[in-house]
Amino acid sequence: MESQQYDFGMIGLGVMGRNLLLNMADHGFAVIGFDLDAQKGVSLESSATKGTSVKGVTALIDLVNNLKAPKKIMMLVPAGKPVDDVIESLLPLISKGDIIIDGGNSHYTDTLRRVNYLHPKGIHFMGMGVSGGEQGARNGPSIMPGGDAEAYQHVKPLLEAIAAKVNNEPCTAYMGKDAAGHYVKMVHNGIEYAIMQLISEVYDILKRGAGLSNSELHEVFKQWNDGELQSFLVEITRDIFLQKDDLTGNDLLDVILDKAGSKGTGKWTSQDAMDLPVAIPTIDMSVSLRTVSAYKDERVLAASLYKPVVKIMKGNKEAIIKQLHDALYFATIICYAQGLAMLHKASYELKMDIPLKDVVKAWRGGCIIRSSLLEVFYNAYNKKGNKLPNILLDKSIAGIIKKKDRNMRAAVKIASQNKLSCACLMSALSYFDAYTTERMPTNLIQAQRDYFGAHTYQRTDKEGTFHTVWGSNE
Amino acid sequence: MESQQYDFGMIGLGVMGRNLLLNMADHGFAVIGFDLDAQKGVSLESSATKGTSVKGVTALIDLVNNLKAPKKIMMLVPAGKPVDDVIESLLPLISKGDIIIDGGNSHYTDTLRRVNYLHPKGIHFMGMGVSGGEQGARNGPSIMPGGDAEAYQHVKPLLEAIAAKVNNEPCTAYMGKDAAGHYVKMVHNGIEYAIMQLISEVYDILKRGAGLSNSELHEVFKQWNDGELQSFLVEITRDIFLQKDDLTGNDLLDVILDKAGSKGTGKWTSQDAMDLPVAIPTIDMSVSLRTVSAYKDERVLAASLYKPVVKIMKGNKEAIIKQLHDALYFATIICYAQGLAMLHKASYELKMDIPLKDVVKAWRGGCIIRSSLLEVFYNAYNKKGNKLPNILLDKSIAGIIKKKDRNMRAAVKIASQNKLSCACLMSALSYFDAYTTERMPTNLIQAQRDYFGAHTYQRTDKEGTFHTVWGSNE
Repeated sequence: MESQQYDFGMIGLGVMGRNLLLNMADHGFAVIGFDLDAQKGVSLESSATKGTSVKGVTALIDLVNNLKAPKKIMMLVPAGKPVDDVIESLLPLISKGDIIIDGGNSHYTDTLRRVNYLHPKGIHFMGMGVSGGEQGARNGPSIMPGGDAEAYQHVKPLLEAIAAKVNNEPCTAYMGKDAAGHYVKMVHNGIEYAIMQLISEVYDILKRGAGLSNSELHEVFKQWNDGELQSFLVEITRDIFLQKDDLTGNDLLDVILDKAGSKGTGKWTSQDAMDLPVAIPTIDMSVSLRTVSAYKDERVLAASLYKPVVKIMKGNKEAIIKQLHDALYFATIICYAQGLAMLHKASYELKMDIPLKDVVKAWRGGCIIRSSLLEVFYNAYNKKGNKLPNILLDKSIAGIIKKKDRNMRAAVKIASQNKLSCACLMSALSYFDAYTTERMPTNLIQAQRDYFGAHTYQRTDKEGTFHTVWGSNE
Repeated sequence: MESQQYDFGMIGLGVMGRNLLLNMADHGFAVIGFDLDAQKGVSLESSATKGTSVKGVTALIDLVNNLKAPKKIMMLVPAGKPVDDVIESLLPLISKGDIIIDGGNSHYTDTLRRVNYLHPKGIHFMGMGVSGGEQGARNGPSIMPGGDAEAYQHVKPLLEAIAAKVNNEPCTAYMGKDAAGHYVKMVHNGIEYAIMQLISEVYDILKRGAGLSNSELHEVFKQWNDGELQSFLVEITRDIFLQKDDLTGNDLLDVILDKAGSKGTGKWTSQDAMDLPVAIPTIDMSVSLRTVSAYKDERVLAASLYKPVVKIMKGNKEAIIKQLHDALYFATIICYAQGLAMLHKASYELKMDIPLKDVVKAWRGGCIIRSSLLEVFYNAYNKKGNKLPNILLDKSIAGIIKKKDRNMRAAVKIASQNKLSCACLMSALSYFDAYTTERMPTNLIQAQRDYFGAHTYQRTDKEGTFHTVWGSNE
């Protein structure tokens, strides 16, 4: 069987692979999927919309031979060795000009290695971030492809067809050269970690600090999601407060253990930011807090030793809710600012030419960090393009931030006076205060470094590096 | 010439190498140093105390052949390839049982690789952290040796002789297996970064917030250094405020540029902590803030856009100074707590068997982070040994922390209300508040992760992992 009738092939028919194929089929593309598990191919075909062209196979050669040239083959397999194994299996079967796409969460350095390995063989390798989970894959994800610009042209129509749409624009675009797709997805996940942590802190302050019930919290997040805080994460948080536990009938959230898991992409973002270097302290902090959450036994011991008492705050509940609304909005902007500043620097340092305008365009819909704020950033980048090293330098964004400044500080004060940890809110505020300071106190650090290690310093009034024999004025 | 009369050999006669050898010679050891630059050998010999045995040579073979067996050879050369080059040059010249010591700032993974490379050849390789700068090397540094326990016995008398002394105990001890010496030094440097950032924040609040002059700041730090905050970094900060600028006659600190440099060891600490994983957010934050300090051009733009106004605080100056004293003390304990918790975890995860009691013993004198606080920690570890996963769980330390709690919160409030970034103070407080909380709000993060990614969650009332189809109660 060598019919070359299919437009797109998928290796790995798990939840994401199957749903992406069904999405493509619904948009008129003939698709074929491979999985060693025959049942998955059967399930794929039986889930297809009537009249669409969907095929499942259990031999890789059948997938390859049925694809039109240049063959477009995507894999959704676990990151690491499985990706390399699939590449080796495909190599004898494909030809120059064919396109392999890794749609999983590979680390960008692995993607870069694979691009460089396959380039001399004439094979295009694209790293592609996909966000949106099962529902997103089926109905419209955010898609972040990177790699060879020429190869991208071959998959562009298909990706634009299946991606989520905002204002009739697809939530996908070319993210840049080499491993840019996976890099952008990594930073997306870092921002996701930080915003989730921020929401959990706001939840804590409202619940333990202001004494709100879960149904009151539901109302608060519902109202917030109908306003400027509209976003996927606020929306699902709204729903979470209503969810009942099948086992007890009580509110499910209250019986969920407070140890947060992670798959490591937030950590990658922080580690790579330090190498660039670029400062993303609110993302770093969210990674740390997940780790602290895992110290359950130590925390129980520490709580019995320190006995922190959180008093329910008196005062106007509505005012506190408004303060936390503004603090969440302020701090969420800071998270995006840090992540986008990281992409700005990485684009240049790693020679990926990442178009930031298109990044926020792709993030506006379909993905976990989609929010109405991205429209604001999209407008900022539309004006200034890649010349904006940090969105905080945009006048319209400065206008928003200034309006929230007072309530941001009020929220941090409330939390810290009431022994409620608000690590990411605080890190967002202190980053902002450092970033907007013309003269930081780091002159003292330079003096200390020169004092004990003769590391030299620069001066404000002269060029050059200087060293002082300190302590002579004692 | 093959006389085997020298006790110890040094490769690299820069500032540190020369001073360590002179220190050894003063303690009765016969020492020999190698440097290709003949002038350095001459300078070494001419600096020696009369009657001590000190020799400089320009041929490696002369160094090796003049050493007693087992030959003890230390190198102080730049980290990276130079270390490997020295090893390769030595291999043909030395024998089984000889000891090579890397006293530079190598990354511990490189040290581990070298240990494993040399072990089958019968050569002992020790990674050794040395802290204290030029003065420390000459008069008594803190020394952190790790590696083969048997080889350590051969260098122990010499290291104990030259190390700084506190209460007649040497500030050195065996730090554990494999790369433990360099690992401990790395974490030392991470703590150093964080404490330096804390001091700079306190300086900023007192200067820009409370309006203190440099001479007033000198008095404050002088007083602090005479009390419970006594430490090397507070001491040199006290001196820095007095230092005059040779060029202008004004206070030197005021003309030092606020871009802080770094050599990367703080970054390593943060990156490796994330891999373990262990939470050291105050160290992470200090790494980030050095990066923000380097964004001078962006900060100038941002300052002109946001125009933050820092008002000189009214109120009792003495009270503010006391609040900041307590905040610095509280936050400094948190920095050590994070670093030592990292060593606790790494000791186990990387199978290094690091004796934490001996780590704080070695840090009590000679090194950059020496402080009277280390005596407090030493007592805690003397009671509980390595069973203490975090010093915050020690009752005596809890007693100290509780006394500083109110002023710590006051300092953070002062700074945040006055637009003074206090990123590390805040991160210390929020880490503390999270660590001492039995129930963190991370249950919400787990709910979110299960909602959008089916990542499952655990429950507080039952074993197992659970998944919910969320949103069904809308």
